[in-house]
Amino acid sequence: MTTSGASAATPAPGWHHRHLIDLDVVTWPEIELIMQTTAQMKGILARPIRKVPALNGRRVTTLFYEASTRTRVSFETAARNLSADVVSISTATSSVTKGESLVDTVRTLEALGAEILIMRHGVSGAPYLAAEVFGGHVLNGGDGWHAHPTQALLDLFTMREHVPGGDLHGRKVVIVGDILHSRVARSNIWSLTAAGADLWLCGPATLLRGFDRWAAQWSGGAVPGHGRFNVTSDINAALKDADVVMGLRIQRERMQGGLLPSLREYAARFQLNAERVSLAKPEAIVMHPGPMNEGVEIAPDIATSGRAVILDQVSNGVAVRMALLYLLAGSHDDAHTTEPGR
Amino acid sequence: MTTSGASAATPAPGWHHRHLIDLDVVTWPEIELIMQTTAQMKGILARPIRKVPALNGRRVTTLFYEASTRTRVSFETAARNLSADVVSISTATSSVTKGESLVDTVRTLEALGAEILIMRHGVSGAPYLAAEVFGGHVLNGGDGWHAHPTQALLDLFTMREHVPGGDLHGRKVVIVGDILHSRVARSNIWSLTAAGADLWLCGPATLLRGFDRWAAQWSGGAVPGHGRFNVTSDINAALKDADVVMGLRIQRERMQGGLLPSLREYAARFQLNAERVSLAKPEAIVMHPGPMNEGVEIAPDIATSGRAVILDQVSNGVAVRMALLYLLAGSHDDAHTTEPGR
Amino acid sequence: MTTSGASAATPAPGWHHRHLIDLDVVTWPEIELIMQTTAQMKGILARPIRKVPALNGRRVTTLFYEASTRTRVSFETAARNLSADVVSISTATSSVTKGESLVDTVRTLEALGAEILIMRHGVSGAPYLAAEVFGGHVLNGGDGWHAHPTQALLDLFTMREHVPGGDLHGRKVVIVGDILHSRVARSNIWSLTAAGADLWLCGPATLLRGFDRWAAQWSGGAVPGHGRFNVTSDINAALKDADVVMGLRIQRERMQGGLLPSLREYAARFQLNAERVSLAKPEAIVMHPGPMNEGVEIAPDIATSGRAVILDQVSNGVAVRMALLYLLAGSHDDAHTTEPGR
Repeated sequence: MTTSGASAATPAPGWHHRHLIDLDVVTWPEIELIMQTTAQMKGILARPIRKVPALNGRRVTTLFYEASTRTRVSFETAARNLSADVVSISTATSSVTKGESLVDTVRTLEALGAEILIMRHGVSGAPYLAAEVFGGHVLNGGDGWHAHPTQALLDLFTMREHVPGGDLHGRKVVIVGDILHSRVARSNIWSLTAAGADLWLCGPATLLRGFDRWAAQWSGGAVPGHGRFNVTSDINAALKDADVVMGLRIQRERMQGGLLPSLREYAARFQLNAERVSLAKPEAIVMHPGPMNEGVEIAPDIATSGRAVILDQVSNGVAVRMALLYLLAGSHDDAHTTEPGR
Repeated sequence: MTTSGASAATPAPGWHHRHLIDLDVVTWPEIELIMQTTAQMKGILARPIRKVPALNGRRVTTLFYEASTRTRVSFETAARNLSADVVSISTATSSVTKGESLVDTVRTLEALGAEILIMRHGVSGAPYLAAEVFGGHVLNGGDGWHAHPTQALLDLFTMREHVPGGDLHGRKVVIVGDILHSRVARSNIWSLTAAGADLWLCGPATLLRGFDRWAAQWSGGAVPGHGRFNVTSDINAALKDADVVMGLRIQRERMQGGLLPSLREYAARFQLNAERVSLAKPEAIVMHPGPMNEGVEIAPDIATSGRAVILDQVSNGVAVRMALLYLLAGSHDDAHTTEPGR
Repeated sequence: MTTSGASAATPAPGWHHRHLIDLDVVTWPEIELIMQTTAQMKGILARPIRKVPALNGRRVTTLFYEASTRTRVSFETAARNLSADVVSISTATSSVTKGESLVDTVRTLEALGAEILIMRHGVSGAPYLAAEVFGGHVLNGGDGWHAHPTQALLDLFTMREHVPGGDLHGRKVVIVGDILHSRVARSNIWSLTAAGADLWLCGPATLLRGFDRWAAQWSGGAVPGHGRFNVTSDINAALKDADVVMGLRIQRERMQGGLLPSLREYAARFQLNAERVSLAKPEAIVMHPGPMNEGVEIAPDIATSGRAVILDQVSNGVAVRMALLYLLAGSHDDAHTTEPGR
């Protein structure tokens, strides 16, 4: 990419998706393309004036049905860095509270000029519905428990920056926490098994339900291009010699559903603290998608230790989102015919 | 208008209003000027980069006391398309909740630099109060039951696009729904009677109160430049041979006031469904200001049928608002002396 | 400052602060520099296009934990006038409601690209905590009862515009109202005593607690560069021959704490009305930081009289904030080493 001459109308070579809703349909070469484009975007962010005209005049709309400062600001900053015009809609200030259907809202936003729709929705699968009726590009900013592809991609980029050699093949990556309700974990399964990582998912048995069956299925090599992964409640086995340790946010609401006895008990058994993290390799990094509950899923001294790359994740998130906006805006619109509803 | 050389300081020929609060004081030649300017703005929206510098550096503030995604985004997109700087204020995030008076708020916004104030307010007439104390231009984005002039103008533009010959003279236009509480209906009465349309207002008798007297008054030719209109609860008579059918949103709150027995009964008697719409001319169009309650005032198959021009209304709304911002910004400030408080 | 050639990278001569949290550490020559820079910014605001490229590409984030239309819009307008990119975060639409700590939020915003952080927080001292962990510049937009330095600076600028000769030395300035809970009063004490004004703080004894001891301490010349000030509940003595009369907002919440018997009694004893204000000099000006409770702390006819410069305060607020953003953005980053946590 030469940013000065970059035109959003030119399709990026190797990128064929009109939307990005989850990583399940993204091939490894396409992920490599995203990684390379992200690295170029990081170069732009290192300049004194972090703005390029790549998406000049293009209309990006963020439609957030769930509040999220960091994700919304990250997407909007990414879009503005590419000189796009940004319209920001959140349910708190939106007439979607009037009971308007998602389909109507999406059609209306397109009629108002939206070309790229970044949406976060509490219902899994909502972005597929949006993509069916939207004439432009849909970029998923998180839907229910289903997927959070930009988070998985920024996680991948951050791991590759810190793992010696930048190759995750055979590297042990452990995700600890509420796997069951985590769209971050689900999207990371696709990208990390594609990267050849030795992926471990760890948490209380109640918060792992269904994942052991999923893991067993893939162990037979059921999904081309994706390797096996492990599921366990044994935190010590999971952390042993890990290269990457990622904590997930524990939601207080989970206790009301009877899935967690108490935050204190969770912390006692699974908190990423100094003692547990010492089981990992000496050079292991600690990650978290934020916002953290310090003292619950992660100990404060670990969150701010030299191992933690949590703020790198935030910074890389802007670059990854710039890369995706750039790739989507340049993608062939007729790609839609091969991916209806995706 | 030559957009490249357009200067906001040059008054548009034929436009003499400092504010636009309702269409009652706008003459037919002025409406024609708005229509022509809107057509030029549509030309800008068809370009790859939909931005012109007409209002470069001008300060537009949206002040919304009622939530409305589509109207707010439409105005803000229109302002940004003209390169204006936009400040967006909605009551949810505003200190107007501290009990500050509207007059204080408007004076403060002017002192902060606002030149064009776009406001939506739940109280009919509130924009007149704002216009009395604001040194710039007030553009009404909807006030109580009173007026929604930009909606009526985008309705008119959309009708003219679809009615053969683009002339509404003698064309039968039917508005069906909660006429009583509708600022859309009220503003449309002014523009459509000025256009010479054969206007029919239709709904349950409880939601038409006062309009028959209004219609009777105008039948005598009481208002220069405006023709008569019809009021009826007979949906079949209203729809018979219609050229344009417009549904209005039914608010659930109306039932609590005893004005509607139930949404189901309303739908049974007045819903725009395939059977009823077949009474209209074969080429008749179906309109709705949105957001729709599909299954209440309009059947889903009608809302998405080939007759429906509902998304055209949304797109045209951006162009009409660009036109109005352009005309207002270029209007003589001394016009104020001839229209105090308006 | 020559705005055309102004570069944010060049430190402003005479300005050495990385953050601006309160005026207690700002010297009189530095205040004079702010005043001069503000005058230049007012010149920019008088132009047809009120925009200069001084902060082009710089990232300004507003983080408001308390709602305030006028302050937020004032800061954002100031930043945009200098061509900065503005990200706006308010608690109502932010995930800070998820219980994320202020430190995490500030670190995250920096990782997202924020260079200047403008924050308002309900807890006194919160900006010091932010400044400890933020790598850029913190500008206090009001914290608890502690400080509101930009308000005090715009007050000072407005007074100097209206006081003959522009010098406050020996001029009698009276602040009337709820001194105890006022960050405006506290910040004004620093700037007005530095300016050599004859400062009087006046209100019910319950709303002056602690200030008499503060005043007594300073009477001995305890703080270099700052003169004495007076504290009284005698409104007539306070207003007698005043050059400047400033009313403060009375919060209804104060009555619940038992500090005020009723708004009516406050108004009877302390309201700035025509009779009381006539005790001041004939050319005295009336000020108020807004939003006003007309009929409580100030009579409506006084608020809109020719003496009132309340809207001048609002306009000057934009210029003062432009000046501060300009000075902060150009300040040496290594100033941090001499002012840890400030």
